Amino acid sequence: MNIIDIISKTKKRTELSEAEIRWLVEKYTDGEIPDYQMSAWLMAVCLNGLTESETLSLTLAMRDSGDILDFSRIEGITADKHSTGGVGDKTSLIMLPIASACGLYIPKMSGRGLGHTGGTIDKLESISGYRTEIPVEEFKEIVRQTGFSIISQSENICPADRKIYSLRNATGTVDSIPLICASIMSKKLAMNTDCILLDVKYGSGAFMKTKSEAEELALLMENIGKKARKKCHSYVTDMDIPLGNNIGNALEVKEAVEILQGRYKGGLYDLCMELVVEILQLAGKGTSSECMKMAEDAVSSGKALEVLRKTIALHGGDSRVCDDVSLLPQAKYKYEVRAVCDMQITEIDCQELGMTSVILGAGRLAKDDIIDMSAGIVMNCSAGDCISVDDTIMTLYSSTVSDFSESSFRAVNALKFKKI
Amino acid sequence: MNIIDIISKTKKRTELSEAEIRWLVEKYTDGEIPDYQMSAWLMAVCLNGLTESETLSLTLAMRDSGDILDFSRIEGITADKHSTGGVGDKTSLIMLPIASACGLYIPKMSGRGLGHTGGTIDKLESISGYRTEIPVEEFKEIVRQTGFSIISQSENICPADRKIYSLRNATGTVDSIPLICASIMSKKLAMNTDCILLDVKYGSGAFMKTKSEAEELALLMENIGKKARKKCHSYVTDMDIPLGNNIGNALEVKEAVEILQGRYKGGLYDLCMELVVEILQLAGKGTSSECMKMAEDAVSSGKALEVLRKTIALHGGDSRVCDDVSLLPQAKYKYEVRAVCDMQITEIDCQELGMTSVILGAGRLAKDDIIDMSAGIVMNCSAGDCISVDDTIMTLYSSTVSDFSESSFRAVNALKFKKI
Repeated sequence: MNIIDIISKTKKRTELSEAEIRWLVEKYTDGEIPDYQMSAWLMAVCLNGLTESETLSLTLAMRDSGDILDFSRIEGITADKHSTGGVGDKTSLIMLPIASACGLYIPKMSGRGLGHTGGTIDKLESISGYRTEIPVEEFKEIVRQTGFSIISQSENICPADRKIYSLRNATGTVDSIPLICASIMSKKLAMNTDCILLDVKYGSGAFMKTKSEAEELALLMENIGKKARKKCHSYVTDMDIPLGNNIGNALEVKEAVEILQGRYKGGLYDLCMELVVEILQLAGKGTSSECMKMAEDAVSSGKALEVLRKTIALHGGDSRVCDDVSLLPQAKYKYEVRAVCDMQITEIDCQELGMTSVILGAGRLAKDDIIDMSAGIVMNCSAGDCISVDDTIMTLYSSTVSDFSESSFRAVNALKFKKI
Repeated sequence: MNIIDIISKTKKRTELSEAEIRWLVEKYTDGEIPDYQMSAWLMAVCLNGLTESETLSLTLAMRDSGDILDFSRIEGITADKHSTGGVGDKTSLIMLPIASACGLYIPKMSGRGLGHTGGTIDKLESISGYRTEIPVEEFKEIVRQTGFSIISQSENICPADRKIYSLRNATGTVDSIPLICASIMSKKLAMNTDCILLDVKYGSGAFMKTKSEAEELALLMENIGKKARKKCHSYVTDMDIPLGNNIGNALEVKEAVEILQGRYKGGLYDLCMELVVEILQLAGKGTSSECMKMAEDAVSSGKALEVLRKTIALHGGDSRVCDDVSLLPQAKYKYEVRAVCDMQITEIDCQELGMTSVILGAGRLAKDDIIDMSAGIVMNCSAGDCISVDDTIMTLYSSTVSDFSESSFRAVNALKFKKI
């Protein structure tokens, strides 16, 4: 086989064989194919696409580039969940404890935040002592004992994906539905759980900007999952508004804990319950209404919060945060953004709000930036809400930035409103 | 400016500004932009194209990456000629002496052969002593004295093109009309002659496979040349049959000399005369019939051969070959491919015939292969000709390969014929 032939075929929309794709992935991961040839192929894929069969071959070849986990010693149904991420997305922190309390086993590897979106691993590290990098055997044991564990993406899972993703990032070849699908699904299939729930977000704060793109990606991932013999269901959610009120690491953990404490029942609670029902149904735990009842009981009984408490403790984290959120990192400085007139908020630009939070210290612009765990934003209103003059629209928090002139300017910029 | 933005724009067919393209070319040539980013951009160009204005910016930025020659000390009109190359293409060796004998000054830099097509520089090096790498000042002086000189492409001309071309070669991004145009025209514009004649070939032996592709490239190059304020004319020629009878370095020099001696007046002679008329008209030397008369006189009077003789001598070559072609390298072995029945040749696959000649030693499969100057093919017939059983269709020559089993098999394969 020959790399120029492979590039030329994709350039001419000639379908590659499974063997050709496997060869390409293996040789690139081994370093035999240089970056400049791979990036030319990736651009050809961005512009010409891949067939579903090529996407399946690529996904499986990437899956097979590293370890494939084995949860056969867990007596129960295992499940994994993926969200394409977004601003203020703490659904994993809420739904995993609930679904585990309902009898599912959920081993989950997550990423860190980059740019305007946060990462679950950063959020968990705002809990004092929580270790996100632990050996795989310990990870499996925590899942067996409590029902779930979230750790940092292991280097031994899909090394091909890591290498390809970093090249895509540097060559403007990120936004390709087959490449996104293969990147996500190769890691999910390497986790090797019985069920996979895929939550694809769209809107201004998400990677997929339109509903139809999100649906295309969701359907493709579901088909690839099924062809790899997994129970797989995909779900498309709107991210035109932030998920919940809080953005920022400790602030999001606080919001998740408060929901599991049963203190809030807004849109975020409803979304998480829907996702839990989906994953329970996928695992064959009952009808939609039976699963909803189980999920509600798990929260109201405190069982879900107990699962979270145990998991945090087994990861070495301070589990007292489940009862006293003031033990989470607190910001030194805060700033209230107030309404200058009576107004109705008509739209929120999540990407801009995410960037505001990054500027406050809650995220990274470059890979090695250090995060201010206490930083972020708490929204007092959502799109559609009316606010009186001088009322607080949102509060900005930071321990590293005491001058809020840039961040408050950006925060206001992220809102569209009309005078009332 | 930012390379990811530039790649993304071309990916989305958003036109790049002149400043963006100039920045891209400069930073890539300087090594600040790595190969893997450039190759992603090149693939985006292959698939999405460039506008004429982007192609002009790219051509000029590549031209400006190195030296631009100055022939202002030559008192006369300077011209350059480019042929997109093909199998058996020795037109430069014939038309440059004729046009120079008619009063034009033609400084020409040429390439070496790779794959199935030959290179003018290799052909000239079959003349004992001919130096193809000489200082630019000496090159200019030879042009001033005799009217033309052909040397190897200088490293100081368009270094950007050399770097980009070698990346295109390694990444399946060669066949793009705007990239081919920029590669050719940047070098022509750096030569900085008054007139440029562009001979674009198409057919099985040429890079452009169809007439419409050739016409598109020809028109684009002509427009770019005119926008860069050059007198520019393009010309499309059919390469479905080899140019002339001989393929191979010394064999092609021999054929060129024999045409300048006035010994042959076939299709190759006619084509060369047409091209000379085109270039003379472009230079304002007269009407079509006046130019034809001048060109015919240059051959019949021996003036064109005299120009070639002087140029070879000034390059240190054995100019006696102009009077005695047997002084050119002679092959040790030869093999006659004969007709197995009475037949008519219906088609000749030039690419296959070119590869046969490479196998005999006349060309390179890899950049560093050493050429057998005596090797090649002499055709006794052309497409449409009828041959009797046992007559010679072609003769294969080599000094390095004495076993003609593979080459004769390939040679026969290159022919389509029917029994008569």
